[in-house]
Amino acid sequence: MSGKQDVSFDPKEHQHLRYNPLRDSWVLVSAHRMKRPWAGQVERPPEEHIPRYDPNNPLCPGNKRANGKGNPDYDSTFVFENDFPALQPDAPDPGSDQDPLFQSKAARGVCKVMCFHPWSDVTLPLMKKEEVVNVIDKWAELVEELGTIYPWVQIFENKGAMMGCSNPHPHCQVWASNFLPNEPALSDRCQRAYYQKHGEPMLLQYAKREAEKKRAKKWFSSSASSALPSVNVVLPGLAAIMKRLLTKYDNLFEVSFPYSMGWHGAPTGPYLKEDNSHWQLHAHYYPPLLRSATVKKFMVGYEMLAQEQRDLTPEQAAEKLRNLPEEHYKTR
Amino acid sequence: MSGKQDVSFDPKEHQHLRYNPLRDSWVLVSAHRMKRPWAGQVERPPEEHIPRYDPNNPLCPGNKRANGKGNPDYDSTFVFENDFPALQPDAPDPGSDQDPLFQSKAARGVCKVMCFHPWSDVTLPLMKKEEVVNVIDKWAELVEELGTIYPWVQIFENKGAMMGCSNPHPHCQVWASNFLPNEPALSDRCQRAYYQKHGEPMLLQYAKREAEKKRAKKWFSSSASSALPSVNVVLPGLAAIMKRLLTKYDNLFEVSFPYSMGWHGAPTGPYLKEDNSHWQLHAHYYPPLLRSATVKKFMVGYEMLAQEQRDLTPEQAAEKLRNLPEEHYKTR
Ligand SMILES: [Zn+2]
Ligand SMILES: [Zn+2]
Repeated sequence: MSGKQDVSFDPKEHQHLRYNPLRDSWVLVSAHRMKRPWAGQVERPPEEHIPRYDPNNPLCPGNKRANGKGNPDYDSTFVFENDFPALQPDAPDPGSDQDPLFQSKAARGVCKVMCFHPWSDVTLPLMKKEEVVNVIDKWAELVEELGTIYPWVQIFENKGAMMGCSNPHPHCQVWASNFLPNEPALSDRCQRAYYQKHGEPMLLQYAKREAEKKRAKKWFSSSASSALPSVNVVLPGLAAIMKRLLTKYDNLFEVSFPYSMGWHGAPTGPYLKEDNSHWQLHAHYYPPLLRSATVKKFMVGYEMLAQEQRDLTPEQAAEKLRNLPEEHYKTR
Repeated sequence: MSGKQDVSFDPKEHQHLRYNPLRDSWVLVSAHRMKRPWAGQVERPPEEHIPRYDPNNPLCPGNKRANGKGNPDYDSTFVFENDFPALQPDAPDPGSDQDPLFQSKAARGVCKVMCFHPWSDVTLPLMKKEEVVNVIDKWAELVEELGTIYPWVQIFENKGAMMGCSNPHPHCQVWASNFLPNEPALSDRCQRAYYQKHGEPMLLQYAKREAEKKRAKKWFSSSASSALPSVNVVLPGLAAIMKRLLTKYDNLFEVSFPYSMGWHGAPTGPYLKEDNSHWQLHAHYYPPLLRSATVKKFMVGYEMLAQEQRDLTPEQAAEKLRNLPEEHYKTR
């Protein structure tokens, strides 16, 4: 088990573990694996011919949804209650089992759907900057509104059939809950411990160090559950940055790039009265593509049972994206 | 946010949180969601016409693999080194960065592939009991051999194209590492804390309580990352139990059921000298199918960013499996 003593370490050539301070866990990076041949499942590239308006799409303006309710003729963003919510505001309490192995708790909340745009044939990188600003403003409004009551408001977008989203209309989901879910609870603990020890928010120090080290122009961290190491966005000028990042994703394989993304802000509701200096608002992007538009990296087996494992370093991913054109392939 | 006071709680009707004591985390169970319509991605059912021997399959007896090495004419199990391993025994040490945000560590190990049977057209539930015993014996042998040096030996099987495994030949992987990965490290902490408090291994108490409560004949726990709550197997008579469980999976939608599975035993290597009374050997099965042979439950969005969420209670899953025939649909 001892290493090659006479070979100097190269992260692109030699497997190693990297610490993820936001989750207090480790990621196995085996970048040398990108050299192997691959016979994985080939998935159909995302549909390219999407009509601007589809009379059968329940997300389009003026259309009826499954529960019979109609959408207005909206011309910007549009928010409605999810017709089949995972969280409802009035579920009864399961009561407490005294056995430590069979604990349960009440789960209450609301699930909303938010359309980004009246047209089905646009995505965030293809929308005008002012239109993306409208989306961000509506996100902020929803967090403020739902956050008066609920401790956690999770905004997330699943994009593309590869990420389980079969509806091409640009939209996201907003789930507010009466509990702090596992991931933000873990992230809260990690950020709090760092702040107590170092006196500054972890993510701001991370961004500073990245800039100092010139490791990347943006801040890339090898966080959980993404094939490309996930990108965490922390910043002002957000609409422009989102458009730029998502344009680069689309340009990578010249397809409308699938991903799951979501926002992590400080907890709300009862936590609004507490000191949240340790929290820095950030987003996670989890893209499933690594080698081509059709070959998906599956998060199974070793990832589920042991540890996250990546075939690419965050620096390699950052460099790939940096070297891509700034202009979207569809508008070039 | 207060619950319906006059409605009594029904886990099949009302969302709630359940504690997973093996991971010290919570799962959102929204069983009422199974009633909603679904327009998810349709995946092709697994290939049904698999030749017993395929001259181009690198896992078949007598064939050449990508690196030019040849397989022997094996007639039982067959183990070889993975030709493109994520872990190699001699990677150099990355050295330590003093910055707490940029920690890295050496990762060393070996990755092996193990064929279960010389034929490509069988799976564990269709193999003879003695053949499954051979597989289990070989697993034990590999853990003992690799565990003399390595602290963790992860045996795992990805089955089916839906789980990223395009080769139908029955096989699993064995990755041994010089580090204890995140998941077993977490599980070790949880089992140790429980043992210290209650004086008996958590999983044995869990199995006893399940039997007392007659919640299920087998032990079903709503663990991470499965659509059906994952099944954890703890027991003697293992070959028969594995055959029975996997037959039920196959019978559920009358397809060769996809899954990821793996074993969690007490840590090995340097840990062999320590007291591991708190550990109970167990397996996890993570099946991705919920509604039909072709509709996959995607673990994205809310699951990645916030918390595991299930559309089925463990009791419902256990009941579905219990009510299925004991005989495999292909041999009926
Ligand atoms: Zn986060
Ligand atoms: Zn386990």
